[in-house]
Amino acid sequence: MSGIDDKATDAITLEPIGFVRGGADEGTKVIAVEPRFAEGLEGIEAHRHLWVLYWMHELPAEERRRLRAHPQGDRSRAKRGVFALHSPFRPNPIGLTRVKLVKREGRRLIVEGLDAHDGSPVLDIKSG
Amino acid sequence: MSGIDDKATDAITLEPIGFVRGGADEGTKVIAVEPRFAEGLEGIEAHRHLWVLYWMHELPAEERRRLRAHPQGDRSRAKRGVFALHSPFRPNPIGLTRVKLVKREGRRLIVEGLDAHDGSPVLDIKSG
Repeated sequence: MSGIDDKATDAITLEPIGFVRGGADEGTKVIAVEPRFAEGLEGIEAHRHLWVLYWMHELPAEERRRLRAHPQGDRSRAKRGVFALHSPFRPNPIGLTRVKLVKREGRRLIVEGLDAHDGSPVLDIKSG
Repeated sequence: MSGIDDKATDAITLEPIGFVRGGADEGTKVIAVEPRFAEGLEGIEAHRHLWVLYWMHELPAEERRRLRAHPQGDRSRAKRGVFALHSPFRPNPIGLTRVKLVKREGRRLIVEGLDAHDGSPVLDIKSG
């Protein structure tokens, strides 16, 4: 990449479409979609599973510079590159989880299996 | 979300870790990882499949505001919400594809099954 035009494409800015609600690591959680994006949920109740992309907002900025980590945080295992892992440490800390859609209540999705923490910004939801 | 601190978390900025190279829709493509992120690839050759998250850079900004679309672009089918679809139209146009890793050549990954276009910024690569 070189030149002013190319550099302009390098700036990628995302906007949360909603937020994760629910503190416990286990059980159901809620994805509360922002009112202005609610129309995007139309027909979602036809799906039993969804992909959720969320922002790991609690990861300190300096951890985004880490390029090697122990698999599953296990220090007895040799470090590997973060792109060879599912580690939260990565230059763009986007979490990716397949969840079960239990129920839709308006612009709230009740889901199972979401490993995001309370307050995590949700970036996208896809069928599949 | 309210207050200055909460708003600060709303700004989410991503940096490409590499770019897709290869124009054809079919066959193998290359993910050329930027030199400063190459260390993150260590051990990736142990995986046969990877998840690739990329930025759909060709989508015009106004299409990000579209919240309903025809499934698979088929105008004979009723529109649905973009979060109930895999449509490229979505507020945060992040593409998500599971690819087969054919070969690693230094910081170039030769992959099969990647639906990204030539020049697409790659945001993340995950095992699985």
